[in-house]
Amino acid sequence: MRQSSTLITISTPGRGLHEITQEMERWADAQEMREGLLTVFCRHTSASLTIQENAAPAVKDDVVAWLDRVAPEGPHYDHDDEGPDDMPAHLKAILTGVSLSIPMTDRRLALGTWQGIYLVEHRRVAHRREVTLHLMGE
Amino acid sequence: MRQSSTLITISTPGRGLHEITQEMERWADAQEMREGLLTVFCRHTSASLTIQENAAPAVKDDVVAWLDRVAPEGPHYDHDDEGPDDMPAHLKAILTGVSLSIPMTDRRLALGTWQGIYLVEHRRVAHRREVTLHLMGE
Amino acid sequence: MRQSSTLITISTPGRGLHEITQEMERWADAQEMREGLLTVFCRHTSASLTIQENAAPAVKDDVVAWLDRVAPEGPHYDHDDEGPDDMPAHLKAILTGVSLSIPMTDRRLALGTWQGIYLVEHRRVAHRREVTLHLMGE
Repeated sequence: MRQSSTLITISTPGRGLHEITQEMERWADAQEMREGLLTVFCRHTSASLTIQENAAPAVKDDVVAWLDRVAPEGPHYDHDDEGPDDMPAHLKAILTGVSLSIPMTDRRLALGTWQGIYLVEHRRVAHRREVTLHLMGE
Repeated sequence: MRQSSTLITISTPGRGLHEITQEMERWADAQEMREGLLTVFCRHTSASLTIQENAAPAVKDDVVAWLDRVAPEGPHYDHDDEGPDDMPAHLKAILTGVSLSIPMTDRRLALGTWQGIYLVEHRRVAHRREVTLHLMGE
Repeated sequence: MRQSSTLITISTPGRGLHEITQEMERWADAQEMREGLLTVFCRHTSASLTIQENAAPAVKDDVVAWLDRVAPEGPHYDHDDEGPDDMPAHLKAILTGVSLSIPMTDRRLALGTWQGIYLVEHRRVAHRREVTLHLMGE
């Protein structure tokens, strides 16, 4: 049993779901483990992680629109230090979460056929986001 | 330190919370570890996992009704390839999540007295769902 | 590779976000591992865990108010054994989740600069809550 970890930086062009499945798979593969547990951790409070449908592009827009309905911008927040999209971004990050745990079996992440891993940017403008990857196994 | 994993298939009769606590406990127990970490991973984008109250049956119906209010069916989705319950199912899976991490101590999962593990089926009709279990410990 | 676990009890004064970052860091630090994976698990169905902004106090109130909007009290629940805040508390726990996975690298949890770990109490009155910590690494 052993472990590996790394920190990757992802540039987001602003609000939306940005697929990072290939980067996760490529790094996990390079650690040359047969079986293990991959943890993906987003080091931010206004960006987050989710696993979703990787086939239909319309899903991504529907997810973004839905997050806006569940946590809309508006005058009803006390916290707006960084603008109207600040507090909604925090709420969307709470709803989606910042850590994912994905088993690895037979040298592959246990993702289903239609599952993709996404970094979700909740702020309107471009950001650089840090994601820590940790793999433990053998 | 060592690890075990398996893939189980669960048949759901359609929308609802289906308790899988016993299956999780039985498999974890059979790995004969004293202490470790169990990861439960749902390989789908329209079914998910949650930990909730295992005593009062009414809770399950209230959860399903609430998920319908938070992510209702309607004409406002671009993605509806598989019908009106398609996109809401994806959104409910995002809200609840597809991976759970549960420590094991003294040969038992660290679940609280009232906690049960549920596979949540978000589609209307019956499905067969795959869940990967991974246990690492000693 | 080795592992450590413990059970801590946290007294909450009632509804709200209660920061537990320091307790997590202190315990993880005392295990004297250089690298590993910390799992934090809340053993309840009406309290939960989240990672959020640790700088602006207004964020906490906004989060509580938002959870009330997404899962409001009301006559539309079947389950109200423990009062009007019973079922909304379960729903808020589902939305936020009860387990967190946080990598540890270079002897420190991989939390971002603005990330704090919070136990979220969803019931109106004070409770004692149990949280299991598990660290695996070397």
